[in-house]
Amino acid sequence: MDYASRLQKLQRALIEQRLDALVVTHPANLRYLCGYTGSNGLLLFLQGRCIFFTDGRYTQQARDEVHGPRVVIAQGPLLNGAAKALGKLKSAVVGFEADYTTVVAAEHMRKLVHRKIHWKATTGLVLRQRMIKDAEELRLIADAVNLGAKVYDEALSALRPGVPESEVAGRLEYAARRSGADGMSFETIVAGGERSALPHGRASGNPIPRRGFVVVDSGVILRGYCSDMTRTVHVGRAGREERRWYKAVLEAQLAGIAAVAPGKTASQVDQAARKVLQRARLDRYFTHSTGHGVGLEIHEPPRLAKGQTDLLEPGMVITIEPGIYVTGKGGIRIEDMVVVTDRGCRVLTPLTKELVET
Amino acid sequence: MDYASRLQKLQRALIEQRLDALVVTHPANLRYLCGYTGSNGLLLFLQGRCIFFTDGRYTQQARDEVHGPRVVIAQGPLLNGAAKALGKLKSAVVGFEADYTTVVAAEHMRKLVHRKIHWKATTGLVLRQRMIKDAEELRLIADAVNLGAKVYDEALSALRPGVPESEVAGRLEYAARRSGADGMSFETIVAGGERSALPHGRASGNPIPRRGFVVVDSGVILRGYCSDMTRTVHVGRAGREERRWYKAVLEAQLAGIAAVAPGKTASQVDQAARKVLQRARLDRYFTHSTGHGVGLEIHEPPRLAKGQTDLLEPGMVITIEPGIYVTGKGGIRIEDMVVVTDRGCRVLTPLTKELVET
Repeated sequence: MDYASRLQKLQRALIEQRLDALVVTHPANLRYLCGYTGSNGLLLFLQGRCIFFTDGRYTQQARDEVHGPRVVIAQGPLLNGAAKALGKLKSAVVGFEADYTTVVAAEHMRKLVHRKIHWKATTGLVLRQRMIKDAEELRLIADAVNLGAKVYDEALSALRPGVPESEVAGRLEYAARRSGADGMSFETIVAGGERSALPHGRASGNPIPRRGFVVVDSGVILRGYCSDMTRTVHVGRAGREERRWYKAVLEAQLAGIAAVAPGKTASQVDQAARKVLQRARLDRYFTHSTGHGVGLEIHEPPRLAKGQTDLLEPGMVITIEPGIYVTGKGGIRIEDMVVVTDRGCRVLTPLTKELVET
Repeated sequence: MDYASRLQKLQRALIEQRLDALVVTHPANLRYLCGYTGSNGLLLFLQGRCIFFTDGRYTQQARDEVHGPRVVIAQGPLLNGAAKALGKLKSAVVGFEADYTTVVAAEHMRKLVHRKIHWKATTGLVLRQRMIKDAEELRLIADAVNLGAKVYDEALSALRPGVPESEVAGRLEYAARRSGADGMSFETIVAGGERSALPHGRASGNPIPRRGFVVVDSGVILRGYCSDMTRTVHVGRAGREERRWYKAVLEAQLAGIAAVAPGKTASQVDQAARKVLQRARLDRYFTHSTGHGVGLEIHEPPRLAKGQTDLLEPGMVITIEPGIYVTGKGGIRIEDMVVVTDRGCRVLTPLTKELVET
């Protein structure tokens, strides 16, 4: 990874924001900026210098992983270490990540430094950078997506009436582990029959029904990067209404994909998918947004929803995942990951979206 | 679960804290107070009434799960819904969870209500209640601990030289799924050979070595409650120094357990374990605290560390997990969960701690 250029870019953002220093603690941001994958870390940008703080549990790991910054093993809270370095300055405006800093932590921070050190809330400084994936990240994301698809296929063979949803999820997760995944990017959803009408129906002990939709939404983490995909299969032969529903969701998903291009707003993509379901008089069952960014975290900006004015740019990686959920009957969601290209987008998820009846 | 009495207890705490209302959003607190297990929820306590807000994705789930409060499906951010209800009051002091509320969210909250509504930072209101587990919770935790031990045993049979760490972790996780676990309570640690010196050595693609320590630290979530256990096995016959190390860690762990009793401070337990390693001249390799509370979350108060003055009370469930980590050589950690009783504690983890050489 080209950590040096990421740090340089952030340094330029500091200057633009008139910050003398910046404290970064959010794990995904730390990994992005210097390669550290542990749980407790703090990166201090201080007038062109960069210092990484962690605790004694991560001594060896920080030495192995951190690229660029000097590593300091702190005794006690990491912020105290950073405050000590800041205390040597006569005065400074120091940014912190207001999206990840709790009110309690912010209060603690204020007390740690003398009164000429001013904390300034920043939002999205690193995340804005992370929205646009570089070539190496795109390769890693494609690998994660392909692995996610492969293990979905393996799990599908276990999906039969009577098998517990959790067994299907377990097969999928075990296959992911055996293929080298770091873990799953969120709790695997396997929701059959009436449960398919739960948009977030985590795999339960319930058996796969003899007949009905089953939503499988899952993702792996491979070398830090997340995948995310959903397919909905029908156990037994689908009826006429079920076919109509499935077709509408698939058309909405394809319309969403077709709407992705640089310069479009996030809400335009959402609107494109939603319109198809409106025409099919199913939009009241589409109770969530159309998609979200994916990268080191499973949910990143942009958010593809009503009112979101973020402009799409080449290098963004997003999900397109409309769905409908009819309480008491069932639900359908179809989700791919796509990367925004210079002229439109490229679908990363390599699996068919035609209705599968098992 | 006796949600009614939990809500009553919290209501009393509100009165003590002179709060007219309270907003709860932390997922584990929501589950504790009303049974909701989804990701986006908000509980508003308002003069004895209780309203639960969530979004359209969770309509059915909230109706199935939420016990007690009235359920409102909000359009847009949940806080806006809560603010609308608060806005009807002439004036009020409204508590929020400062440990889980970001600076950005707090700023947003301030803008949502008229100026006679005062937000007040609260910390640990619900968590203090959660520290003491009731009889039903203790049964659920014991079930989780027993399942965690069972799947550890299954995974142990896969632990052989050459097998990737991730394969051992995968077996363990698959066994957990098949036995009905909701998921794992944290990323499974399987760290062999030199990697055993990483206190947080998440299972990697590295093979189990021909000889050396392997640390396995894992936990399941069963019906919402977490388990947490660590065992360290030695592949091949352990040498004299390795035996001495193992014996010292085991004695430290037993000393920690022996020190647990109502009225003792959290730091006294930490001290008891640390002292044994001091006597063995190994304390500089013990780079973390001795333990932590466990319940709906894997890390809860109390924290068993230096300077922690929390008094132990019957019904608390904590881990006792000293360890040593010698960079370049290897590491050992032994961890049980115990429940504080009227006179001491009861060890929940049912597995042997004698040195296992595989």
